[in-house]
Order: sequence, then C-alpha cells, then structure tokens
Amino acid sequence: MIKAGIVGGTGYTGVELLRLLVAHPEVELSVITSRSEAGKSVADLYPNLRAHLDIAFQEPRLDELSQCDVVFFATPNGTAMNMAADLLNAGVKVIDLAADFRLQDPAEWKHWYGMDHACPDILAEAVYGMPEINRQAIKSARIIANPGCYPTAVTLGFLPLIENGLVEDQHLIADAKSGVSGAGRGANVGSLLCEASESFKPYAVDGHRHLPEIRQTLSKIAGHQVGLTFVPHLTPMIRGIEASLYAVIQRDVDDLIELYSKRYADEVFVDVLPAGTMPETRSVKGSNMCRISVFRPQQGDTLVISSVIDNLVKGAAGQAVHNMNIMFGLDETAGISQVALLP
Amino acid sequence: MIKAGIVGGTGYTGVELLRLLVAHPEVELSVITSRSEAGKSVADLYPNLRAHLDIAFQEPRLDELSQCDVVFFATPNGTAMNMAADLLNAGVKVIDLAADFRLQDPAEWKHWYGMDHACPDILAEAVYGMPEINRQAIKSARIIANPGCYPTAVTLGFLPLIENGLVEDQHLIADAKSGVSGAGRGANVGSLLCEASESFKPYAVDGHRHLPEIRQTLSKIAGHQVGLTFVPHLTPMIRGIEASLYAVIQRDVDDLIELYSKRYADEVFVDVLPAGTMPETRSVKGSNMCRISVFRPQQGDTLVISSVIDNLVKGAAGQAVHNMNIMFGLDETAGISQVALLP
Amino acid sequence: MIKAGIVGGTGYTGVELLRLLVAHPEVELSVITSRSEAGKSVADLYPNLRAHLDIAFQEPRLDELSQCDVVFFATPNGTAMNMAADLLNAGVKVIDLAADFRLQDPAEWKHWYGMDHACPDILAEAVYGMPEINRQAIKSARIIANPGCYPTAVTLGFLPLIENGLVEDQHLIADAKSGVSGAGRGANVGSLLCEASESFKPYAVDGHRHLPEIRQTLSKIAGHQVGLTFVPHLTPMIRGIEASLYAVIQRDVDDLIELYSKRYADEVFVDVLPAGTMPETRSVKGSNMCRISVFRPQQGDTLVISSVIDNLVKGAAGQAVHNMNIMFGLDETAGISQVALLP
Amino acid sequence: MIKAGIVGGTGYTGVELLRLLVAHPEVELSVITSRSEAGKSVADLYPNLRAHLDIAFQEPRLDELSQCDVVFFATPNGTAMNMAADLLNAGVKVIDLAADFRLQDPAEWKHWYGMDHACPDILAEAVYGMPEINRQAIKSARIIANPGCYPTAVTLGFLPLIENGLVEDQHLIADAKSGVSGAGRGANVGSLLCEASESFKPYAVDGHRHLPEIRQTLSKIAGHQVGLTFVPHLTPMIRGIEASLYAVIQRDVDDLIELYSKRYADEVFVDVLPAGTMPETRSVKGSNMCRISVFRPQQGDTLVISSVIDNLVKGAAGQAVHNMNIMFGLDETAGISQVALLP
Repeated sequence: MIKAGIVGGTGYTGVELLRLLVAHPEVELSVITSRSEAGKSVADLYPNLRAHLDIAFQEPRLDELSQCDVVFFATPNGTAMNMAADLLNAGVKVIDLAADFRLQDPAEWKHWYGMDHACPDILAEAVYGMPEINRQAIKSARIIANPGCYPTAVTLGFLPLIENGLVEDQHLIADAKSGVSGAGRGANVGSLLCEASESFKPYAVDGHRHLPEIRQTLSKIAGHQVGLTFVPHLTPMIRGIEASLYAVIQRDVDDLIELYSKRYADEVFVDVLPAGTMPETRSVKGSNMCRISVFRPQQGDTLVISSVIDNLVKGAAGQAVHNMNIMFGLDETAGISQVALLP
Repeated sequence: MIKAGIVGGTGYTGVELLRLLVAHPEVELSVITSRSEAGKSVADLYPNLRAHLDIAFQEPRLDELSQCDVVFFATPNGTAMNMAADLLNAGVKVIDLAADFRLQDPAEWKHWYGMDHACPDILAEAVYGMPEINRQAIKSARIIANPGCYPTAVTLGFLPLIENGLVEDQHLIADAKSGVSGAGRGANVGSLLCEASESFKPYAVDGHRHLPEIRQTLSKIAGHQVGLTFVPHLTPMIRGIEASLYAVIQRDVDDLIELYSKRYADEVFVDVLPAGTMPETRSVKGSNMCRISVFRPQQGDTLVISSVIDNLVKGAAGQAVHNMNIMFGLDETAGISQVALLP
Repeated sequence: MIKAGIVGGTGYTGVELLRLLVAHPEVELSVITSRSEAGKSVADLYPNLRAHLDIAFQEPRLDELSQCDVVFFATPNGTAMNMAADLLNAGVKVIDLAADFRLQDPAEWKHWYGMDHACPDILAEAVYGMPEINRQAIKSARIIANPGCYPTAVTLGFLPLIENGLVEDQHLIADAKSGVSGAGRGANVGSLLCEASESFKPYAVDGHRHLPEIRQTLSKIAGHQVGLTFVPHLTPMIRGIEASLYAVIQRDVDDLIELYSKRYADEVFVDVLPAGTMPETRSVKGSNMCRISVFRPQQGDTLVISSVIDNLVKGAAGQAVHNMNIMFGLDETAGISQVALLP
Repeated sequence: MIKAGIVGGTGYTGVELLRLLVAHPEVELSVITSRSEAGKSVADLYPNLRAHLDIAFQEPRLDELSQCDVVFFATPNGTAMNMAADLLNAGVKVIDLAADFRLQDPAEWKHWYGMDHACPDILAEAVYGMPEINRQAIKSARIIANPGCYPTAVTLGFLPLIENGLVEDQHLIADAKSGVSGAGRGANVGSLLCEASESFKPYAVDGHRHLPEIRQTLSKIAGHQVGLTFVPHLTPMIRGIEASLYAVIQRDVDDLIELYSKRYADEVFVDVLPAGTMPETRSVKGSNMCRISVFRPQQGDTLVISSVIDNLVKGAAGQAVHNMNIMFGLDETAGISQVALLP
C-alpha cells in the first residue's frame, strides 16, 4: 500500500481527492493537514465521508509528512513551493494541484501570480503532469505540476491539431465555461447560489492565469509561440468544464475525427466522439474522462472542437491520482475508473 | 460471476442500475432489454457508459432472460407481474424495482394502480426488499419487491419509533421532498427544466401511490393500522429525497438518538447523525446511504425526524443491488459502497 | 410624490425595495444609505438598476433621513430600534423590514435575538404590518414591523382555520421551505452555489426566530397560546417559500375552500386556488401574491394547507410597499401589481 | 387603446407577451388563440396570470382577429406566412415572432426551414424588426419579422464593428449560450430538468437556423457577404443569452467603448458597460435590455465582445412590443421598462 498525505484538504479539490483515495485499492491515506480545521474530523466537514474515513485534520508537520510515499498539495498557490524541497529531500514524491510548478519561467510565474518563485531549481525539475503528453517523464518524476482545469480541457482539445501543424496558430480561440466549483469553497459573494445560479457571464477576459499555462504547453508542442485568446465563463452548475475551440485550418486533412481517434487510441481517459455527436459535461460528472468532438461546420475553413471534463476530477484530483498511478507503476485506472453520475 | 439481466433499462432507474452493475465485482451484465430502443447501443443512449459497457438494448426474450441468475425489472408498473412466473419457473431470481409486488393486498393494488393483479400467488410469496426489516426473508426469497423511494426514506425514519410504540400513531405526518428524477425520464411538460427549476410545489396531496405502501409497512410493524398523512413535494434538483416526519410522543424516552443508533448499529447503509446535526440530501448523492436525524424541538411533545436518501440509489437501484447481494450471499456492500459525490 | 429613504440597502431586501420603488408612480427615492458601500453608485452594485436609478449609497445621516416622508429599514436586526425614535420625532414614518418590532414582548425579543430592546415604548406602539389582519391599525400607524417571510406564508395559511376555531391548535405543524435568498447576501459558505444547489435540507429544527413571531400572531387570533412545530428547510432555488401546514380538524365544515375564499375575498394579494389545484412558488416569483390551497386528504381528520409567496416580495419588500400604500392612503396595489415572471 | 391579438399563445414566448401586454398602458388584449387549448382559461395554463387576465384561449378565427389593430404570432415556424395576407388585407398590422419573415431569400428560407415560402411577396415587404437598425422602416411597416433571440444578441454585439469596417469579417466567431427556455415548452427529453440541469453542451454545431439570419443582417451592413462561425450552447438556467464574439481588428481605433457608446447613445435598450465591467445575463432577466462589453485582451489584435439579453424579452416578446410601440407611435418604452429581477 502506498502511504499518501494531503496538505490542505479542506477545499473542493481536497474533498475530491479524499473521495477517490478512500476507494483506491493501493492507497492508504495516512495524514491530512489543515491549519484552519486542525483537530476536526474530516467527516464532520464533509458528511459524505462519514463511515468511509475516520481521520482528523491536523497541523502540517514535516516529520509526519515525510513518512508518506507521496504528498498531494491541495493548497492555495504559493504553499507547495515552500515545502517541496524538504519533502523531496526526505524521499517523498510530490504532486502539486496548485499552480506553483506549472509555469516553467519564474518571471512569468511572478507576473501572473504576483510572488517570487521560492525554488526555481525544483521548478526546473518539475514535470507537467498531463499523461497524454508527458507519460514517460511522469514515470520517473519526483515532483509533478498537476495541470489546471481549463488547461486540461483546452490542451487536449487542440493537441492533435497543433502536433500536426494543421491550423493557423496565431489566432487560436478558446471559449471555455466552468461550473462554480472551479471558484473553490471560499465564501465569496460571487459564488453564492443567489449570485451565480440563473445567470451566465464571462470573467477575467483581460487575462486569466490559465492563459500562460495553455500557451506554454501549446507553444512547446508547436515549436514556436502560439497566439491564443482565452475567455473563461461561469455557468450555473457545480461541476464541469466545456471548452469550445476555434481555429482556421491551413492544411487539409481527410478525416479529422480519425486523426483525433488515432492520437488518443491508447489514452483510456480521452474519448473522441463519433461524427455528429456532441459532448455534454454531465457525461463526465464525477469521472476522469475527457470527451472531445470535432466539427468543420459547412465545410468551411474554421474548425470547432468541443472538449468536456469534470473540473474536479480530470481537471484536478482525478488527474492527480492518474499521475500517482503512473509514478508508482500501478494500473493507470486504479481508483479512477468510476462511471459518470448521470442523471 | 452472477449473470444479471435488466428488463426495461432506458429510464433513470435503469441507467443507475447499469452504473452500479458495471462496477460490481461479482456481476456480469448479460442482457438488457428495451422494446423502444432495441438495437441501440446502451452507450449511445447514456454517454456516461461509453468505454464502460459494450452492449445493446434488445427485445425481451424469455429464453435469453432465463439464462440469467437474476433479472431486475426497471419497467413501468404492471410489466413485471406478467413475466415473473416464467422467470421463477426457470429458476431465475427476480427483483422488481416497480410497484407490482409491493402491496400485499391485490384489491389495494387495483385501487391504487388501476389494474388487476396478474399473479396474486406470486404476490403472496414476494418479499418486501427492505434489508433493515426483512433481511432473513430476503436471503431465501425468489422474488423481491424493491421498495419505493419515498417509502424507503419515510419507513426508515419512523421505524424505531413505531417498533417501540413511542408515538401516537394515528396522526403521523410525512412531509417529503423529491428531486425531479423521481418523475422519471418521460417527456412530460411538468418535468421540463423551465417548469420545475426555480420552483417548489406539493403534488398528489389527495393521495400518492406510496401512501398505502408506507402505511402497510408501518402498520405491520405496529401490529395495527396506523394513520398517516403523506404529502410529496417536487424540489428543483436532480437527485435526493428528504422526508421530515412528525409524531407526538406518548411514552417518554431518555435518549432518542441512542435509540436510533442502537436500532441501526448493524446497518451499514443507515447513518444516524449526532445531536444537532441535520442531514442534507447532497451528503448521499450517488451513494446507498440513508442519513437520519432526530429532534425534539423545545423539549415539547412533537418529535421531528429528518431522513435523506438518494432516490435513485437507496431509493431504487442501490437497494436492489443490496437485495441481490443478500440473496446471493455476497458481501452486502459489494458494488454499492461509493462515497457520495460532494460537491 | 412621497419622499422615501432606505437605510441599509445593499442586501437582497434592499435591492428588491429599489426594484419596486423606482417603478412606483407615487414615490421618489431620495436617499439610500450603506456604511460599507458609501459613495458607490447603486447601479454599480446592482447592474439591473443601470439606467433606472442614478443615486449613490451614502452614510446614514439623520438630517437627510428626516427630510423623507417614510424610511424603510432593510438593515440587520438591531439597527432600526436605535434610529426609530429620532425619525418618528421628526415626523417620519418608519417601516422596519428587520425583526426589531415584531415581537411585542421585550423579554422574548431578548431571548431570541440576544440583545436588549432599545425602545420598548416604541415597540408597544409598533403595528405588525400584515394588511390582511391589521389594515385599520396600519392606516394610522407611525411605525410598522414588517412581517418575516416564513410568518407571512404560514400565518396567511393558518388564519381562517384559527379565526374560526376549526382545528386542534396545540399541535400545529408548519413544514416550510425557502429559496436561498432568504439567507441574505452575506458571504457564507452554506449559501454558496456548490453547497446549496442540488441539495435539500432542514435547518434550525431546534428553534428558528420566526417561530415566536408566528406563534404570537396565531395565539392573538386564537385568544390563547397555540402550540406550533415549525421546521424550515433550504431548497435549491433563489426565490420562493412554500409552507405545508398540518392541523387536525375538530369542528366540521362544509366547504373549506369556500371558507378561505370568503375570508380573502377582499384581499387582492391572497389568491385561494380552486379545488385540486396546487400552488407552485414560481407562480408568484417577483410578485406580491400569496397563493393558497386547502386539502383534506382521503376525507380524514388531518387538513393540509399549502401557501406560497415570493420571500423577497410578499415576504419582505412588496409587503413593505403595501404597508406604505396603506399608510399614505394610496391605491393598495400601486407599484406592486407585477405579474410573476414565468418561466 | 390598441386592440391586440395573439395567435398561438401557449408557449413561453406567448406567456411572456401576455405578461408584458397585460401591464401595457396602451393595449387591450382582445383575443388569444390556441387550437390545442381552446376553451381553457389562460390563467389555468399560466397561474402567474391569475387575477391579471380573465380570458380564454379560442380557435383562431379570421373575423375576430381582423378586429384587432395588431396581431402577434407566437406560433411555430410556418404558421404566420399562411395567415398574414388576410390580416394585412383587413388592415391589421402583423408582428411575427417566429422565423417566417426573417430570411429575405425564399430559397434560403426553404433550405433552412424545409418548406416553400407561402407568400414571397409579403416576405419582400416585411421589415426585420430590430429597432437599432431599422427604426424608420419599422415606423411605416405593415408586417414585422421579429428577430431571433441569438441574432439579437449577436448582431447588436457586432454591429458597431461591422458598420465601421473595423474587423476582418470573413472569420467572425459567435460563441453563444442560451437558457433552456429557448427550446420552448415542448415536452422533449433533452429539455427535462434531469437532462439539462447540471450540464453544459454545444448543439447544432453543423448549422443552426439563426446562422443565416445573423449572416444576412451583418452582410447587409457590411455591404458584402461576411463569414461567420456560430456555435450555440445550452446552459442550465431558464432565461438568458450570452454571446461571446471574436474578431480580428484590421483598422485601429482609439477607444472601442466610446465607439460602442456613441453608436447606442440614443438606444434606450442597449447599455454599453464601462471598461472592466462584464455583463451577466441575470442583469437583464425579465427586462428588455441588452448589455454589451468590449475587450481587447492584452492589447492583441483579437477583440472580444460579450452581449447579454433575456431571450424571452429583448430576444422575443419585449422586442415585439418595442416594434409595436414604434409602429403605433407610442413611447418606445411603454410596457417594457421593467427592471430586471435580481437576484
């Protein structure tokens, strides 16, 4: 059994990690920390875990965390980078679900996140944990930057086009929509049911932190800097991200769906839908699947790709467990093969 | 492996059975029938099952169903009673998720369901499949009447009070609220998002079919006919039932919560909450748990019990699988130990 | 034109008052105060008011408020009682939408609200502003205690029964359900979309502050202390209250619906539904109407009444405007005759 | 008073027309027709109208409709074109809320709507009823094609850019999201709460009927055929459309917001938001307003415009009443100046 610890498990990413890890056949959850809830039973905060988990939040302590085989950070940005070195030195593998190790350029990190990076050397070593791109590197990684939710949906949607240089890549457009759980469990007025339900709105149009993350990955694949307009929207539901992607084709291709299907043929968590079928976020609710459709409306030159994930699973906790499975040589689907909850 | 068949698997109860059975370690799903969708892949109707289940709906045929060890009926009322005899004769165990075998009196069945009962002899044999009451009988049953959703929540809530004769039982009140999935997948105007969301309403105040079912069970436990007012309400969400129960105490008791806790100490799917804690339906979403709170406001003589379940799991498919587990001597929690999806 | 002021207009009750008052033909909104938002344009906080209202929040100042004909308090409990005396002395009429003047017994106020009452003498003068009961007193009142949302729905539902002594009134039951706007615009975790949507739960079962308010009104009507169990529930929608009321009949009556219809024949904001029709909260969304249905299931001795209102209109701002209309001799429906928004 | 008739008033557009017309100071609703509901009181179908409207649905009869000054068609596509000639001959003005008179080319109509146009001559005369573009023509029109919901939001959003030739107009992108009421009151499985809530999806990616309508208007303004990719999405709420529009700038402009503000300075129902503010659909719920924001993220060459409306008001019934007001020389805001319902 792998001994796992969670630092900062009180948010939605944390409870989702717990939901997955308590049912994981190869994992023993040994410690979960929270400064604000230390001493409180996890099941008191999250009643769905009653009868499944008998453990309390505790103050984070390095000696205890060092006993783990792997530690997940489900903390605010800027926490993991201050604890990673000690854990790595103690031989613990680290999976950070926050953004600390996602942007490879410390200057860009500082620009978007407003703080100096605490450990640029570890940053250089960290592997961006998107198995569909970096499986080999993940296998031997000591520290994983678990991708953001929007970047997961958008990157998997654009990937086959960019890899094959099929589209004009200076004006890529990603119009993405997220359920409210993406905003976290913080008590903000904007996330109240009375503010966010029965309404739809764009936000952060001038620049969202996931923009540089997506651009970095796509640019690396393209071999040059891509141009991307990324507009996130808040949609009145709990879970789910849909990204509608637009790009102008510059090289013709016989069968786009076949292109996507082949690219993802060995990826158990990417499902390319048959022609004429459109994805719905509910088809992945609670599951680690990403479903993708590809369209070329009226046989014009603009392609439309729609990609859906559950932001808390494939976009966060599920992908983190997937990374852990790969790092420890387990069956990749262990603990994350749940069927989506429908309806 | 137990070979299972499902008759009529296109509704919400059907897809929920599929979700549970495809992940059940001891079950092989061998046949699923639907007259209306025969020939269609199950995953085409329910995209959450893509990559999990590669089987198509087919016309119901007795010879094929007879190869099963157990057949679940997720059909409209009045279907199972016409097929049960042949299946039982073929040695197949039957679990009916509809109402055909719930009311033990054929006259009452006809009164509430508007049709003659097709097999009163089998009705007499059928066991009401509420494990918390009838575990022994379920073990040896050939045919199970799987309880209704409201009756599950209400009966488990009242049970310890009635068993102990603690309350005046001629004016019991059950004010129950259900998510819209309880109305099924039929295309009715009243179940449209634009009709049912952002609204709350009572319905069937003059008499709901679950009233005689609840009354039958409670009366059997009481040893005499109880009086019950049951008012169901439609609440704007997909899954979940909450039943608020009211009864006037007639014999004093030291500790009501302890009474409930002891009654359900060995029941893995009933969770009595500690004092001051109130259940939420989301704490059981997607799980087979029933959570119950007991209150005596202002130390008056009126007790308030709140009981929550997921209507599609503990109130339908999950309880059906629980019954199957008991009938076949499996671990009772096999395939139904999922943690509720929260948020 | 009546000059109206609003103290504390940043919450949901405040914005609803604004929505009604900007369209009121006889009212000029002259001042709106908020300590936290002073200086901010109202339309910046509430974008629905852009182009309808060009006024900014300001610090509350007695001299300015004294210029008004009427001042509405849409403040937290405990604010109005500290400002009422000065305003009344200045000849300003006061309508308090909070609870400061609802409980006539200062000791009970202290018990439920945890603070000494600041002006018991004014409390003695204040009129409970439910027009269907107190129209005459409202006409000449200087200060109005605007009823709570639950008390409005519950009291109007029980009223004809209690007035006529038709039911056993020591075990009245009110099972009430409210949309989340009833919890206000405060940034509480429990009101987040991800916590409150797709879920249903009871709360404050041990005792909600609206219990003594309802009990006070019904007891006054009955001429003796009634016994009431009141259980509020949170339902996943923005607006609306439904109260299902239960009482055992003790004197027979020919036609309950006729009894209700006669009682409310002259009340433009109470609509008694015809037999067999059940109210939905959406039928009153955004309107000042209360709709009521009366049932006697299976001709037993337990009556079921269902009463629905929009908690922010008839349960708060609309009823306040209704009171103002009566106090100033206007058409009672002025500014509050909107048709409910459906769907 | 203007005598108004409604043909086909049972859908959501119909009930919304009723909500607006019963409160319109210059209109008397004299007849409402529905073949399916003939004889039924309107208030029985739409309980929000109880006490506001005492009229029953009746079979459509030309003689009665001919007594009206104006007749609104809230019918399925293909109905109005068969009745318009007779009404126009009788001197009745016609406002069609369906699509019969929107596409000026009968061949294109047939391509997208699958039927021959019944009256190409009247089609040639019909005025596309978007006041912000066609006010003068509307004033003297006998027959109005009321714009579609998506076309209203998208066209108003692109208008200033296209009028000024500011953007490359061969690759315009409109990513639009609609509440479920856009799908109407038909009993379709896809519109059930359990199918459409807690989910988000694109639909009709290969070609939606509103695509040619938007393209026709924008092309007319541009003076040449524009290229447009239009992808509608279903979002889990009742009312509201948000359209996120993308275009590459080809001529520089100092201040985009000022450009928009000037264009719409005299338009009471278009509100251009200040810099940094983003529209929310709830800010127009129940109102006839269109709110628009303009962005140029990171000062790149891709513009992002977000436009929101209530699909049933500005996108249907409200715009129809606006057209009526203009046709009859009334105050343009008569009956449609409601403040949006928030929260």
